[in-house]
Amino acid sequence: MVKLIHSMIRVLDEAQSVTFYEKALGLTIADRLKFPDFTLVYLKNAASGFELELTINNGTSEPYDLGNGYGHLAVSVSDLNAEHGRLKDNGFNPGDLVEFAPNGERIARFFFLSDPDGYKIEFLERSGRFS
Amino acid sequence: MVKLIHSMIRVLDEAQSVTFYEKALGLTIADRLKFPDFTLVYLKNAASGFELELTINNGTSEPYDLGNGYGHLAVSVSDLNAEHGRLKDNGFNPGDLVEFAPNGERIARFFFLSDPDGYKIEFLERSGRFS
Repeated sequence: MVKLIHSMIRVLDEAQSVTFYEKALGLTIADRLKFPDFTLVYLKNAASGFELELTINNGTSEPYDLGNGYGHLAVSVSDLNAEHGRLKDNGFNPGDLVEFAPNGERIARFFFLSDPDGYKIEFLERSGRFS
Repeated sequence: MVKLIHSMIRVLDEAQSVTFYEKALGLTIADRLKFPDFTLVYLKNAASGFELELTINNGTSEPYDLGNGYGHLAVSVSDLNAEHGRLKDNGFNPGDLVEFAPNGERIARFFFLSDPDGYKIEFLERSGRFS
């Protein structure tokens, strides 16, 4: 059986991205592989076996084209309001809290935060399958 | 502590994508939420709590612009050669098997497969942290 193990995004500035994912999401470096032309950084925390892989290509300075296909990486948190406040207190700029209840019944509570390269991260309140 | 729970991609054809992820990766539908303008499909299997979320926007027929920032979703498999053969036998078109050993020491064995919208999936042989 296949197992989902990581998602990879290309980022421009390794230090900036590693700091962001540590401060905003609490992910730390599980491994770092440096090659002549590029570096791979694997980020994780104890809550999941799934990792985020960052690729840093040497000599790339133009922002990556994020297109309109890839959407986001989602994380769940137990207290969404507290997390939103913590991020703002730490200088991040999360979007507004959204109650998603298209038919009157709440399906999700969430907000989005962008990483240094503009990739979206969805913070979902832990509930039901979002746990 | 935040927990990584899913990754979202936008796809054009729900049935085609669901069939692909079922046949190629063995993922099945954990939930499907249909709204007036779009549908969300959550795919998973028993090997991981992490899910792949598909967003299908009604009325979209132009291929999504995948850009050059997002890289891939990676899965691990126990027998890479067998998986490569199984995919070919089932009409898929996986790329060549790659032995990644930049300094003489093997770091990974993998191949890539594209989904119906062109998103890359990396199949990694289960080993070390890729397990």
